[in-house]
Amino acid sequence: MKDENCIFCKLASGEIPSTTLYEDEDFRVFLDIAPAVRGHAIVVPKQHMADLLTVSCDTSEKILPVVSKTARAMKDALGCDGINILQNNGEAAGQSIFHLHFHVLPRYKDDNFTIPWKTLTYNSGEAEEIAAKIRGHFSDN
Amino acid sequence: MKDENCIFCKLASGEIPSTTLYEDEDFRVFLDIAPAVRGHAIVVPKQHMADLLTVSCDTSEKILPVVSKTARAMKDALGCDGINILQNNGEAAGQSIFHLHFHVLPRYKDDNFTIPWKTLTYNSGEAEEIAAKIRGHFSDN
Repeated sequence: MKDENCIFCKLASGEIPSTTLYEDEDFRVFLDIAPAVRGHAIVVPKQHMADLLTVSCDTSEKILPVVSKTARAMKDALGCDGINILQNNGEAAGQSIFHLHFHVLPRYKDDNFTIPWKTLTYNSGEAEEIAAKIRGHFSDN
Repeated sequence: MKDENCIFCKLASGEIPSTTLYEDEDFRVFLDIAPAVRGHAIVVPKQHMADLLTVSCDTSEKILPVVSKTARAMKDALGCDGINILQNNGEAAGQSIFHLHFHVLPRYKDDNFTIPWKTLTYNSGEAEEIAAKIRGHFSDN
């Protein structure tokens, strides 16, 4: 249930103190100590699981309502113009702590935080080829 | 239930065709036609709702298992090294289609897609001050 070497297990359980915004039986929401923007919050399950690929059924149903609740409280409290939700799986995706977590980021019209978004164009037939590969794996999951 | 002017309502219902990866009673998963990376998928509810601030209880419990299923199928099919989940709320956060959606992005060790992450440091007392504001709004939601 708990990984003795995991800092997010310790923050989630309260063994390491955090600036907690919300806590219930299953989750804790706290301010990131190295925020990308002011008010940047982290939502974690108290139970240890590495990422969204290994999330338990129960947590996968219960965590988004907590993320949504956090986003609403953040918008009401800070009056921000928008909110990004970011969740990273694997080192290649920027995950640095291997305990499932969602970043909740308040955004403002004039902030300097940007997520660059350069788009590609598929070659003819390429999208269908990729889709066929992925589609075939849905039944396994 | 459906917004006649919403392109994601039309894609979700199948009125506009898409490269669909998965579909069930409540959700559709399809490839983004302007992908940030090859295999970039979008998860949408069939019911219209603007964002995570206005998500229905039912959708907020059901959508993440679909996002997780998509991530697992994508990893199995493409052999990617990681996966980012991104969900934008509001124009200031980069949302351009105002129908709730999750981006699922396959990532590779050597890809050129980056989400820049420059961190700030809170001044003394600042984190607690922000937390107190947000905390006070949880009971309303």
